[in-house]
Amino acid sequence: MPLSIELICVGTELLVGKTLNTNAHWLAKRVTTLGGTVTRTTEIRDDIDEIALSVKDALQRENSFIITVGGLGPTFDDKTLKGVAEALNRKLAVNDEALKMIEEKYHSYVKEGRIKRFELTAARAKMAALPLGAAPLCNPVGTAPGVLVKQEGTTVISLPGVPSEMKAIFDESILPILKKAAGDLAYFEASVDVTGVVESEMAPAIDQVMHNNPRVYIKSHPQEAERVPRIEFHLSTTAKDSMTARNHVSKALSQLSDIIRDKGGTIKPTNTEL
Amino acid sequence: MPLSIELICVGTELLVGKTLNTNAHWLAKRVTTLGGTVTRTTEIRDDIDEIALSVKDALQRENSFIITVGGLGPTFDDKTLKGVAEALNRKLAVNDEALKMIEEKYHSYVKEGRIKRFELTAARAKMAALPLGAAPLCNPVGTAPGVLVKQEGTTVISLPGVPSEMKAIFDESILPILKKAAGDLAYFEASVDVTGVVESEMAPAIDQVMHNNPRVYIKSHPQEAERVPRIEFHLSTTAKDSMTARNHVSKALSQLSDIIRDKGGTIKPTNTEL
Repeated sequence: MPLSIELICVGTELLVGKTLNTNAHWLAKRVTTLGGTVTRTTEIRDDIDEIALSVKDALQRENSFIITVGGLGPTFDDKTLKGVAEALNRKLAVNDEALKMIEEKYHSYVKEGRIKRFELTAARAKMAALPLGAAPLCNPVGTAPGVLVKQEGTTVISLPGVPSEMKAIFDESILPILKKAAGDLAYFEASVDVTGVVESEMAPAIDQVMHNNPRVYIKSHPQEAERVPRIEFHLSTTAKDSMTARNHVSKALSQLSDIIRDKGGTIKPTNTEL
Repeated sequence: MPLSIELICVGTELLVGKTLNTNAHWLAKRVTTLGGTVTRTTEIRDDIDEIALSVKDALQRENSFIITVGGLGPTFDDKTLKGVAEALNRKLAVNDEALKMIEEKYHSYVKEGRIKRFELTAARAKMAALPLGAAPLCNPVGTAPGVLVKQEGTTVISLPGVPSEMKAIFDESILPILKKAAGDLAYFEASVDVTGVVESEMAPAIDQVMHNNPRVYIKSHPQEAERVPRIEFHLSTTAKDSMTARNHVSKALSQLSDIIRDKGGTIKPTNTEL
């Protein structure tokens, strides 16, 4: 089964244009590099019904993983686990392991002088209320643990929205799981910067090179309007090992480059190691 | 009817972590400032079925507007209008007005020396193939026109993914339409930076201030882990005029500030004009 992942980013701050969604970008890059596919990303508001509906819809699309980001904290507006529990038709209940993680974190805050004393308030206990059957994932940076719960063929993972916390939990607890699920796949990409041709002149050629190299995905990105037309071409592939992946991209790029030069374009590699 | 808008961002480059979705962020900010609400943002791959399904789903959620971004260009991978046409159950056909816009643009490119001569290739004609009944929107910056089509109560707008083109079409052709739809609503927001309290200490207070100020939306954003805990509080509201909106935020912020100071926190305004 290919590693397909759907991202659900929860947070009204994303939808009012306050916060740029760098989390989705970071996760997509990580998953792609592992040889996996992010099939869709959804941004929704801090609303239980919206969260529950989005998770339910994603479950029906038969992804191997669903990763939610945001809404795990102590405030009234952190509603992700309620929504996930509803989507999975499970109750929320205090998880002893999660509670222990949270208590230990606050005790360390007292030691460091960040807070005066620890009291298990409702707001703090809330972060330990997980869907039944879920496991907490250690948060090495902040307070709210990540959460992992399996439902039939899909694993639903919830991560906090603070980028440093999201990244730390992902790299520590999720990366090994995804690596195992992806198997020995390798991703390779190359970009070239082309000047002197417009995209519409190149369209049939891209089509032809993709047809000759069905494993390689080629995309043209015309750059902001300038006097001299400029296009970035991005070639990428996933293969059983890195040498094969590199060879596939290399061959397609060579064919594309010939056509670009024929049309009078100039090519400059940007991020390729070919 | 409130101005509710759903964004559908089309582009595999978003889902492989190549491109950060600054377009969605920019549009969300613009819509919010007008007093409208972005209810959801979806990022999908360059796939006709995915595009058609996403537009169909968004139509069922009864938004006043759906804005798609990306996939309007001349290449094989620019599939948005095919997907939109399928979702609306309409045929694609060359639109004379769109074709004229595109021809004029390429003629100007010849004059500027960007291309040697103009020929109406299939790739170029493709950009003029719109869903039946749609209107093209002038692209002052690039080649592909934007597209507007009404279906029952919803207006579906398609914009190109190159940021400068997207922004130019939005400000020139969409902004006046949305302003009219939003009516005389005003948005106001303020942010304060608070040090010396942790989020879990503030959770019940936020709840209480939101209860006392039901029109104001308050959200706490704990900042990356530091020795001294730091939280950004963001307060926002929409009201019938800017003075009322400002007063609502001001009152809520004053109540919140009292509580923060009671708890030993320090407050510094960040982007407020209060």
